[in-house]
Amino acid sequence: MLHIGGDDIAAMEDRYRVFFVNALSGFKAANLVGTRSPDGCDNLAIFNSVVHVGAKPPLLGLISRPNTVTRDTLDNIAATGEYTISHVHSGMVAAAHQTSARYAPGVSEFDAVGLTPRYGERLAAPYVAESRLTIGLKHRQTIDIELNGTHLVIGEVVEVEVDDTAVAGDGWIDLGALDSVATAGLDAYYQARRLERFSYAKPDRAPKPLA
Amino acid sequence: MLHIGGDDIAAMEDRYRVFFVNALSGFKAANLVGTRSPDGCDNLAIFNSVVHVGAKPPLLGLISRPNTVTRDTLDNIAATGEYTISHVHSGMVAAAHQTSARYAPGVSEFDAVGLTPRYGERLAAPYVAESRLTIGLKHRQTIDIELNGTHLVIGEVVEVEVDDTAVAGDGWIDLGALDSVATAGLDAYYQARRLERFSYAKPDRAPKPLA
Repeated sequence: MLHIGGDDIAAMEDRYRVFFVNALSGFKAANLVGTRSPDGCDNLAIFNSVVHVGAKPPLLGLISRPNTVTRDTLDNIAATGEYTISHVHSGMVAAAHQTSARYAPGVSEFDAVGLTPRYGERLAAPYVAESRLTIGLKHRQTIDIELNGTHLVIGEVVEVEVDDTAVAGDGWIDLGALDSVATAGLDAYYQARRLERFSYAKPDRAPKPLA
Repeated sequence: MLHIGGDDIAAMEDRYRVFFVNALSGFKAANLVGTRSPDGCDNLAIFNSVVHVGAKPPLLGLISRPNTVTRDTLDNIAATGEYTISHVHSGMVAAAHQTSARYAPGVSEFDAVGLTPRYGERLAAPYVAESRLTIGLKHRQTIDIELNGTHLVIGEVVEVEVDDTAVAGDGWIDLGALDSVATAGLDAYYQARRLERFSYAKPDRAPKPLA
């Protein structure tokens, strides 16, 4: 086992530290965030920091820093109050990763990487047509994290489109059946194989696989 | 495809909504958070909401609500200022899930579920000896999310222990090689198989697998 102290992390070369620390949190989801600028230009950017905030109301958060290619995303959310999240499946991985390139303003990443925008009825922001689970959100709050200048952007889910064969009778969604991918760090993509689903844990009985 | 509006989500039966919305964000990491109370009782709780906040300084966040079994975790972090995160691998899944049972105060989840505490030199909070990637953290800030009464708890990484065969030459950690698991929703666990790692994306070239 490798033992690494906080002082060792501080002494790492910047790029090495970015790779190392970005993998520490464990597997993350790969999500494409779609927005539309006030003058009608579509934008699409990959995020691996989407997090569940609550179910009632249905809230999702994402962590963002202002000084990156995601700035268009943040600007559009601030200006229009809406955005979309589209899951990435294994057939979309290369195109999804490519949205992280710094395209010139006014270039739609959909065109640049070869993904198809789909427009819904509730939002002007574009969904990714190739995705098997898409979420429309209205912006609710942005919380500044002063420790490092990042932001927690929170939105409320206003619509979901999902392949119905992946939704179980109790509401759970089998992300493996959708072939949604997981990521480690900034640039590695993984396919998931289901191990087990467990029933609600109780102190007086052993862990029980769900029937 | 199933189309579900925000009004449909609001009308869902509570348990159905919890299952459905918890899966929307995509795959999440399964992490065990270890704490020690001021009077020396170890606590261990599974979290699927750990999120990368920044690399310099190395910051991890987790979303928590106060009125659940995770309250011991939050109380201990507030009282001692420290906690640990241990990745869950496929051989630990049942025990890790079982930490979500509501054990009586004073019961160590390590004893109850059959995991082994490991004590480091920098923190009193326990690590999980069976884990292949463990992280020690000092609490830096808790941000209240007033929209729904949850909290974003942010800590700074002060030490990491990781199986060195999984750390690449550029600092990236292959979570698949560690057999770290991913989760969908509250109770489903998945094993990950690596698809591809891509080089830094640039506008003028196609996505390129990393050599």
